[in-house]
Amino acid sequence: MSPQIERVRGTRDFYPEDKRIQNYIFEVWRASALRFGFEEMDGPLLEPVELWKEKSGDEIEEQMYVLTDRGGRKLAVRPEMTPTLARMVAQRFRELPKPIKWFSIQRFWRYEKPQSGRLREFWQLNIDTLGSESMMADAEVIATSVHIMRSFGFSADEFTVRISNRRLLNSMLRAAGIQEDKLREVCRVIDKREKLPNSEFRHMLSELGIPERSIESIEKFDLVKLEKIDAKNLDAEGIRGLSELQELFSYLRAYGILEYCTFDLTLARGLDYYTGTVFEVFDTSKEFRAIAGGGRYDNLVAQFGGDKCPGVGYAMGDVVLELFLRKRGKLPQLRQQIDFFVASTSKELYPKAVEIAQKLRERNYNVAVDLMERSLSKQVKYADSIGAARLIIVGEEELSSGCAKLRDMKSGSEKKIKLSELEKI
Amino acid sequence: MSPQIERVRGTRDFYPEDKRIQNYIFEVWRASALRFGFEEMDGPLLEPVELWKEKSGDEIEEQMYVLTDRGGRKLAVRPEMTPTLARMVAQRFRELPKPIKWFSIQRFWRYEKPQSGRLREFWQLNIDTLGSESMMADAEVIATSVHIMRSFGFSADEFTVRISNRRLLNSMLRAAGIQEDKLREVCRVIDKREKLPNSEFRHMLSELGIPERSIESIEKFDLVKLEKIDAKNLDAEGIRGLSELQELFSYLRAYGILEYCTFDLTLARGLDYYTGTVFEVFDTSKEFRAIAGGGRYDNLVAQFGGDKCPGVGYAMGDVVLELFLRKRGKLPQLRQQIDFFVASTSKELYPKAVEIAQKLRERNYNVAVDLMERSLSKQVKYADSIGAARLIIVGEEELSSGCAKLRDMKSGSEKKIKLSELEKI
Repeated sequence: MSPQIERVRGTRDFYPEDKRIQNYIFEVWRASALRFGFEEMDGPLLEPVELWKEKSGDEIEEQMYVLTDRGGRKLAVRPEMTPTLARMVAQRFRELPKPIKWFSIQRFWRYEKPQSGRLREFWQLNIDTLGSESMMADAEVIATSVHIMRSFGFSADEFTVRISNRRLLNSMLRAAGIQEDKLREVCRVIDKREKLPNSEFRHMLSELGIPERSIESIEKFDLVKLEKIDAKNLDAEGIRGLSELQELFSYLRAYGILEYCTFDLTLARGLDYYTGTVFEVFDTSKEFRAIAGGGRYDNLVAQFGGDKCPGVGYAMGDVVLELFLRKRGKLPQLRQQIDFFVASTSKELYPKAVEIAQKLRERNYNVAVDLMERSLSKQVKYADSIGAARLIIVGEEELSSGCAKLRDMKSGSEKKIKLSELEKI
Repeated sequence: MSPQIERVRGTRDFYPEDKRIQNYIFEVWRASALRFGFEEMDGPLLEPVELWKEKSGDEIEEQMYVLTDRGGRKLAVRPEMTPTLARMVAQRFRELPKPIKWFSIQRFWRYEKPQSGRLREFWQLNIDTLGSESMMADAEVIATSVHIMRSFGFSADEFTVRISNRRLLNSMLRAAGIQEDKLREVCRVIDKREKLPNSEFRHMLSELGIPERSIESIEKFDLVKLEKIDAKNLDAEGIRGLSELQELFSYLRAYGILEYCTFDLTLARGLDYYTGTVFEVFDTSKEFRAIAGGGRYDNLVAQFGGDKCPGVGYAMGDVVLELFLRKRGKLPQLRQQIDFFVASTSKELYPKAVEIAQKLRERNYNVAVDLMERSLSKQVKYADSIGAARLIIVGEEELSSGCAKLRDMKSGSEKKIKLSELEKI
């Protein structure tokens, strides 16, 4: 006997009871995506490491699991879906009808310190619309995220979609005196604001050489109301961002989901590739990390060798979502579904039990039989342990008159049934 | 614009039309496994490389994609499921009710020369029963493979399950004069026989130092009929193997699947961990590699640090299966399913179209709307291109009387419908 080998830290084993929960999450994701007319796609799990270079921001690159294959090529286990998606769109850009509406439910790896809400192996739903510059597309992908959260049973009291626009934020930062070459770094600090004490937030901006007056302006960004922003104080980019946001919110009203959405200028999103709309789904208690996040990335496909192709999308991870579902008691009771267990009173009658089981399976019932050559009482006990709804007992006496016993496992009620009637059960 | 980065050789992109086919295969797999009472499970995609050392045979170890993580630990992208399964069973052996009946549908990587039926990234259904030594368990897993093939529409003319037993084969080899220390290597040569010219087969055995008389006996193994084997010529292990096979075939008769099953002594299966039953699913034309393969592995869980736990199971890959489905014309026409496209005659009416779409989605219809600010005629053309079944047109005139146009896209017939009636559609 070898010593037990342990699984990698930050990964999970999915025993059947865990896999049922994962499948429930996947089914809600899939149903919501299909409801809005998105189509499922997928790509390879390992891709050339170049696919992520300079596209995803330094943080993700550092977190990648990279190997060298026998041909000497460096491959990464994918840490996110968007580069694969951009590659696939670039490859067939001209032949694909627009808009391209794709989703995927897949596994990813990132080397992170495992902690609450963060694992090294996790799953994401990715939903993306490519080929449309219209805020109609942004509104729709946001609407899918709300549809998902509502499908899980969450109310407007429990979650919020925080929405902003990179163009507006950049313009507001410029208005606050931030130089163009500092925008990116300041955005990253703003992104971390919620996790930092205010003194630390100020310190980080100060370290970037941001003057005190600018810091004071940025500090008040969380108080900015969309309807109070005066276009006169904005440059052209800011005016465009503001009007995009106004249009987006008018569509969110049409979707009937305004109550779940809120404007939040302090939402920056770390990834460099976002160009306009950015949004994140949060629990309102702010106990957890973001449940989902995404935005508009109008330059990304061109970076992957394709034509210029606007895009908007997001990812929702399984780890934080499951924590939140548990916390709010929203996970349904999920049991194995066995419609029948067919038992026999002796090994001689086992073939008859198998025959009956096969007939029931042809009629799309989930059926189990004994596999352990157990006594009848042990078969019944096992049938009960796997939650079989009904039990059929094949015994000598009943069989001689073409019958078997049929027991409802819940009520315990039992009756004799003709085998010929099982065909109509 | 960067140059196009290409995906790794031996992998596939799954555009929606490809993913629909993959999902169809997965659904048939899943439905069949559930029909027999198996429960879905999963484990991490990367595991410590030690998990495969000395367990899976040298070939698989050579084919693994291995990386060193930032903690200096060697991890492999899993090339097969069984070691993970054995690890998970070993971890919870005592608390898991027996038999343990698990299945998984997952992605694997092996470094192989990409060729027809072999890719570097592929999917497998794995079905395993652990905790039972009875041939009842072997019969059931074989029955699931037949159920799958029949669900795909294949007949007994098109596929065969070839079945043998390692104990019987070992005993027959000993009877043919093969020394104990040569059994393993001879089995590997036998396994390759179908792919080799006879002269090469003889040569390989001869190279192993097998005497001519033994080679002549082994050459005739493909003619051996189960009912003709005389137990008197066998040692104890052979007698056990023979009786296991006889019992197995009696159960296969009870499952009503004898017509799909055939005894074939030349089936050895390369993997060292098989101890009794071995089987493979083949197309009868023998044009393709094996569609599925598996067997009994009674010592494997103990090797992973668990108690001794008998097991039997198999894997069915997606690559050969899909080739076979295509070849026999068994793939159904799979289209995106869009129940409604809701168009509007102007941007002003778009919110109304969205509102109607949302109501239909609440009633579980798959609904698409315009995302491109297109003219009505272009919206209709797009609706047609995505195969929308019905079209709703929101126009000024109809809307003023609380109505919209409803068009059946197939027949082209159109009628006016009250918006209030859409709630009951």
